[in-house]
Amino acid sequence: MARTVLFKNFTVVTPNNEGRLDVLKDAFVAVKGDRIIYVGDDRALAVRSLMEAQRESGGTQIGFDEYNGKNKILLPTFANAHSHIPMVLMRNSADDMCLEDWLFKRILPREEHLTKEDIYFASLLGMAEMIHGGTGAAADMYYMSDETACAALQTGFRMNLCNDGKTRDDSGWHTDRVALQAFKNTFHGAGDGLIRVSLMVHSIYMYPQSFYSELVSEAADIDVSIQVHVAETRTEVENCSAQYGVTPVKALANFGVFDRPCIAAHGVHLTDEDRDILAAGHVTVVHNPSSNMKLASGFCDVQAMKKQGVRVALGTDGCASNNNTDMYMEMRLASFMAKGKTHNPAYLSAEEVILMATRSGYEGMGFMDCGMIAAGMSADLQIVDYDRPSMWPVGDPVSALVYSAGASAVESVMIAGHFVKYKGELTTIDIEKVKAETSKRAERITQFA
Amino acid sequence: MARTVLFKNFTVVTPNNEGRLDVLKDAFVAVKGDRIIYVGDDRALAVRSLMEAQRESGGTQIGFDEYNGKNKILLPTFANAHSHIPMVLMRNSADDMCLEDWLFKRILPREEHLTKEDIYFASLLGMAEMIHGGTGAAADMYYMSDETACAALQTGFRMNLCNDGKTRDDSGWHTDRVALQAFKNTFHGAGDGLIRVSLMVHSIYMYPQSFYSELVSEAADIDVSIQVHVAETRTEVENCSAQYGVTPVKALANFGVFDRPCIAAHGVHLTDEDRDILAAGHVTVVHNPSSNMKLASGFCDVQAMKKQGVRVALGTDGCASNNNTDMYMEMRLASFMAKGKTHNPAYLSAEEVILMATRSGYEGMGFMDCGMIAAGMSADLQIVDYDRPSMWPVGDPVSALVYSAGASAVESVMIAGHFVKYKGELTTIDIEKVKAETSKRAERITQFA
Repeated sequence: MARTVLFKNFTVVTPNNEGRLDVLKDAFVAVKGDRIIYVGDDRALAVRSLMEAQRESGGTQIGFDEYNGKNKILLPTFANAHSHIPMVLMRNSADDMCLEDWLFKRILPREEHLTKEDIYFASLLGMAEMIHGGTGAAADMYYMSDETACAALQTGFRMNLCNDGKTRDDSGWHTDRVALQAFKNTFHGAGDGLIRVSLMVHSIYMYPQSFYSELVSEAADIDVSIQVHVAETRTEVENCSAQYGVTPVKALANFGVFDRPCIAAHGVHLTDEDRDILAAGHVTVVHNPSSNMKLASGFCDVQAMKKQGVRVALGTDGCASNNNTDMYMEMRLASFMAKGKTHNPAYLSAEEVILMATRSGYEGMGFMDCGMIAAGMSADLQIVDYDRPSMWPVGDPVSALVYSAGASAVESVMIAGHFVKYKGELTTIDIEKVKAETSKRAERITQFA
Repeated sequence: MARTVLFKNFTVVTPNNEGRLDVLKDAFVAVKGDRIIYVGDDRALAVRSLMEAQRESGGTQIGFDEYNGKNKILLPTFANAHSHIPMVLMRNSADDMCLEDWLFKRILPREEHLTKEDIYFASLLGMAEMIHGGTGAAADMYYMSDETACAALQTGFRMNLCNDGKTRDDSGWHTDRVALQAFKNTFHGAGDGLIRVSLMVHSIYMYPQSFYSELVSEAADIDVSIQVHVAETRTEVENCSAQYGVTPVKALANFGVFDRPCIAAHGVHLTDEDRDILAAGHVTVVHNPSSNMKLASGFCDVQAMKKQGVRVALGTDGCASNNNTDMYMEMRLASFMAKGKTHNPAYLSAEEVILMATRSGYEGMGFMDCGMIAAGMSADLQIVDYDRPSMWPVGDPVSALVYSAGASAVESVMIAGHFVKYKGELTTIDIEKVKAETSKRAERITQFA
């Protein structure tokens, strides 16, 4: 059951409606059910709003919990807008390698041996890690996604989750509208709206030319959004240019991919025209700093995208190319990469990357009532405890979140009004069981390489 | 008093004499006094070595402590080879700014108001943070270094510590051999060898031309090493070229700076000839990834230095330009920057950056018996606990340390046989007192901007 909570005397850091961050000192935030019902500096008003909400709901619950904000920052949970959660099983097992060896000698041979149970337990492990680090939602692209959906519902984790929605046999690729429709029927909106469903369109290099329009019409028929990789590497751009005579963005646009609500991961190698296309479509581009640097894919030009009106969110990519899912790390790296690449230390500020990691990610995933701490919004919140030497003295809380904090500073995480991490402990995942299961499964899988 | 400890069943990751890393599984490491006396897989031999050492020392201590290594990695502590510890007071208070504004509008005006007590408490805070994150030593360059030395001795922290060794008045700069000699007499070798003393030669742009030779002869007369900044920014190189007609490395070399044992921080903008000069001198170049990216100084070419035979270590720089002192972060970023910049994901491997952060740093600081887990070496050790979702499954422990771990995974830290962090708790620093003192001092200092 969702908790009725008064967060008191917190430093609140939140996106506002003007696309900037607000910082409120000594603020009160009241949560009832899955909603934020008060944000402000007046304790009496906060308490009154809780009492009124309680009376209106006719509930029998008396009173509320108080959460003390001394030396703590309250901010929205992060939306990890591009992940492959089950790849956590391959963590730290394919590093310092060129992309082709990484993919063809390590990752793909192992993926052939993954079972449904592997996916289920790996999903729980990935969610445990994300929750520990303040992430409340992920846009995930992987296989056997029923298992990941079940793990998310059991955990209380928010997702925009791809379904494969296709099959492949000797005669080639085929759409699978039945499977996608069934997946949507079961999971879209499940858990009081925790899950949203999308179709995986892996990339411009994965399928034959004739198949893309079929995939787009499948997504349209079942009315789901799309997740796709785009312009991640120079090789992808060159091959696409050779095959289609245009950039990956243009090729995907020509097939209609960007006419659907779409999460497009990476966007490293883009032209001005590409960015205009992305800005005109229903697209959120997801920057994955660690993965792009570790796999040496290139430097995503976030500022150019923002200037041309593209919405940009932040993601961790899979654990086989990162090797963790710490959105604090991604925020810092996004800022560092931008500054380092452009020789401009004022470029991509702490404020900008927090907006990317929170509000922009939720918007891209279709959760329009998340990523902002304001009355009426969903109560998806995290608490950072800066009472530790690595964040002391805290200074500017916005700088502190990006340049000093890390996943380990997250004390509590609430998703849709439920604490999934409370004062250091996960509340919905049996982590000892999950570690034992994933440990033996990782051992089995990583043999195949 | 130093502990007699048997570390048992650990995964040991350590530099070896061939300049590579060894990984030992289920290993035993015995520590007596400040020394490692056994490393291997034989418990009986480990115990016998402890018993014999105890008998030889004629000590009255009976038995020894055991430390269980299940799900734990034992590795050398990190040597943070370039820091400005007291700048922790300015953490998160000057971000996303161009270098000139950062330096002249924020940092310098504040530094004028620093007192000895500020330096003392800030040093303790910085050491607390470093120890928490597995760092056992730092090469520090700042003012009022008596205070930092006292903090280090009280804490049991290992340092190569600059003394200013000069004064400035209306007639210009003057060496202060008396002060440097007194500092050396008091602190060099203090704490059973914990402290080594060096002379600060800030950079090629700080002093008039005539003063450099004087500084070098001062260092030679008192027989201390030197710490210097070199080739950090393009502006520095351009100005040096205009003034001296040569690069900063060549100018400093011409003055004899590199004839002394020397720690040279940054080395971002170097020529092949510069690297040859650095390789031929007694120089350790310190790469500072976070600071170089955050201040947009440029990309240090570590691989080129290694190829030309330059010893390269790793540092955090000061907290006003980082904004923490997490050597795990610096290792990961060093690897990421190298891969990202060169478009080669095999470049600067996890093994290479661990060597930089450990053995190379200690060598550069003059602690030749640190940075390696082997019999006869000083017991400067850290323990990483990978029993946590963000490091599970652990996979390759070398990859795990660089690509998954963070400061928060460090469970215990031993310096010269003393636990300064034991199972999560600092043992030699009253952190509540230090936080209270630094909090009010930071508030005072950051007004001046």
